[in-house]
Amino acid sequence: MKFSIERAVLVKAVSQAQSVVERRNTIPILANVLIEAKPDGVSFRATDLDVEVVDRAPAQVERPGATTVSAIMLNEIARKLPDGALVQITSDDAAGRLTVEAGRSNFSLATLPREDFPVLAATEYSANFTAPASVLRRLFDKAKFAISTEETRYYLNGVYMHVAQSEDGQVLRCVATDGHRLARIDALLPEGAADLPGVIVPRKTVGELRKLLDDDEADIAVSVSETKIRFATPEITLTSKVIDGTFPDYSRVIPANNTRKLEVDASDFARAVDRVATVSSERSRAVKLALESDRLVLSVNAPDSGAAEEELIVAYSDEPLEIGFNAKYLQEIASQVDRDNAVFMFNGSGDAALIREGSDQSAIYVVMPMRV
Amino acid sequence: MKFSIERAVLVKAVSQAQSVVERRNTIPILANVLIEAKPDGVSFRATDLDVEVVDRAPAQVERPGATTVSAIMLNEIARKLPDGALVQITSDDAAGRLTVEAGRSNFSLATLPREDFPVLAATEYSANFTAPASVLRRLFDKAKFAISTEETRYYLNGVYMHVAQSEDGQVLRCVATDGHRLARIDALLPEGAADLPGVIVPRKTVGELRKLLDDDEADIAVSVSETKIRFATPEITLTSKVIDGTFPDYSRVIPANNTRKLEVDASDFARAVDRVATVSSERSRAVKLALESDRLVLSVNAPDSGAAEEELIVAYSDEPLEIGFNAKYLQEIASQVDRDNAVFMFNGSGDAALIREGSDQSAIYVVMPMRV
Repeated sequence: MKFSIERAVLVKAVSQAQSVVERRNTIPILANVLIEAKPDGVSFRATDLDVEVVDRAPAQVERPGATTVSAIMLNEIARKLPDGALVQITSDDAAGRLTVEAGRSNFSLATLPREDFPVLAATEYSANFTAPASVLRRLFDKAKFAISTEETRYYLNGVYMHVAQSEDGQVLRCVATDGHRLARIDALLPEGAADLPGVIVPRKTVGELRKLLDDDEADIAVSVSETKIRFATPEITLTSKVIDGTFPDYSRVIPANNTRKLEVDASDFARAVDRVATVSSERSRAVKLALESDRLVLSVNAPDSGAAEEELIVAYSDEPLEIGFNAKYLQEIASQVDRDNAVFMFNGSGDAALIREGSDQSAIYVVMPMRV
Repeated sequence: MKFSIERAVLVKAVSQAQSVVERRNTIPILANVLIEAKPDGVSFRATDLDVEVVDRAPAQVERPGATTVSAIMLNEIARKLPDGALVQITSDDAAGRLTVEAGRSNFSLATLPREDFPVLAATEYSANFTAPASVLRRLFDKAKFAISTEETRYYLNGVYMHVAQSEDGQVLRCVATDGHRLARIDALLPEGAADLPGVIVPRKTVGELRKLLDDDEADIAVSVSETKIRFATPEITLTSKVIDGTFPDYSRVIPANNTRKLEVDASDFARAVDRVATVSSERSRAVKLALESDRLVLSVNAPDSGAAEEELIVAYSDEPLEIGFNAKYLQEIASQVDRDNAVFMFNGSGDAALIREGSDQSAIYVVMPMRV
């Protein structure tokens, strides 16, 4: 194998591949990236056995071939080479070495045979559709903060993507919850997605996917089976196993009959919550919301260290209500609200609250109360 | 105690004070900042019993007084208050509370009595002088990377500041070493500094001092005794115990008879060292320097992972030499060299190398070789 590639192109392709590589792993080949040079270009493939990413890049291929080399080391070398350098990559399979040359720098890296590199088994995908990057980004970005980190409830360690029936017809829906809060985000159902089986996309895949979605203009090809999901652009293919479990029936968690309505500027609200939470050093800071006509008082009381109170002018015309929440959960939800006015729908002080953006039903959040 | 203070002024004063507070400490009062309001302004004092900082700030003092309150909490509150806010601070000594008010926010913080706050004992300073911030900054910034972190050699855990005799007469000198490398930085002796006793300024104090030295135009009043050192601007006074130990006789470590001279662009050199070191994942990466006429080849050989080599055009006209160094040490020294041309003076491959900036003798570095 022998090819030359621009340093900037190499950096981009390898950095995306190496981010899939787990820093601590006991199987040496999983620390490597599989480089495959074909007449029309070069691909870089990395995997942790659950997620696989393939980056394709243009290169001058002199001699096709393939080998594997440390992903982290290749990434670091590429990064440190001078801007604008042309990098020559040559494998010497007999010696088990890969040579990386640029200008007066010369690196010789240990390789492992390409045959040892695990490639995810092919799958029949039952649904194939295309969605703009911006749509997928919204679906996952607004849901992911609610993903659970509890390993015992592994079926909550991802975003549940499925087809659902909303008031406006069928939608593509992403849901995440950790049992304390929930996010439910809808988008227009793309053509071809109606047969999508519901799948739980693991947290790590959601993070890796984010890098494919930066380009607003890009269209992403999505393929889904019962066991795998694949996201592809012309340059990158990200394939992931989905979580083998059943996502709980979240619909019964979403309060339907909350009638007390609070409207508040989302960023003012988030900043006020942040300020009053300062006086408590506990991890689960409870903030009390006391509501009466057009007035919201946020307060925290930590007997050891102090107390804090802040008043906000809001729109509220129902009967007075006192209710407590975890400060972090409130802030995270408020920071998801893109528009100025966050709408909170309350019932009693022991009931979950529903939060949405204005009158928009396509992104709703639920948060459980705390006793204060 | 009652006063009002601008939010930006409060943030600056408290953030400098709270950085001295140790995050983990078992004595509750040491987590607090002592606030003292006098008719002409307010001071914020924090200490870890070794270092003490006092920040003075202008304020509208309505009722003088003093109390102590959590430094971290007060700092966080000040930071989170809206820009431009006027902050009203009132202590209620009977209730043991401090009230912080700004706009619609209201905080009530637990206090501890001012009498419990430890104040560093006063000292007779035997030397008092004034030096521009830029001069002190250079002395400490260029030396501090070489401070040892080994607690067993506690007398190396700081920068040794003293008066020394150089070729150009008496100088104010800062030296730091960890036994593997050494930095020796000289400055013109300020008036009044001739009687300075040599003192070892602890690592933490060097870090805190840095914040006083940002303003190029400022003059810093320095006072030194056998046991303490004090740095003062009109707003801030930093007082620190010095390390109670004897700094070793460093002069015999500095090679005087190295004759082989290498001149190299400091930043090219640092980048090349960084690149070749990539192939070794070990902590103590050895880089080999092979010198012959006007040519330097840097190389690293890590049998498990690979090898790297880079050639640099340099100025060298002595007989060929091969010598190895710790890559990190070489990079750190090269990054201290402000001017383009770093000058290395070598003897044999088992002898320490001396590095300086061009022909300037006021900043020199020594690094021990490694076998390669």
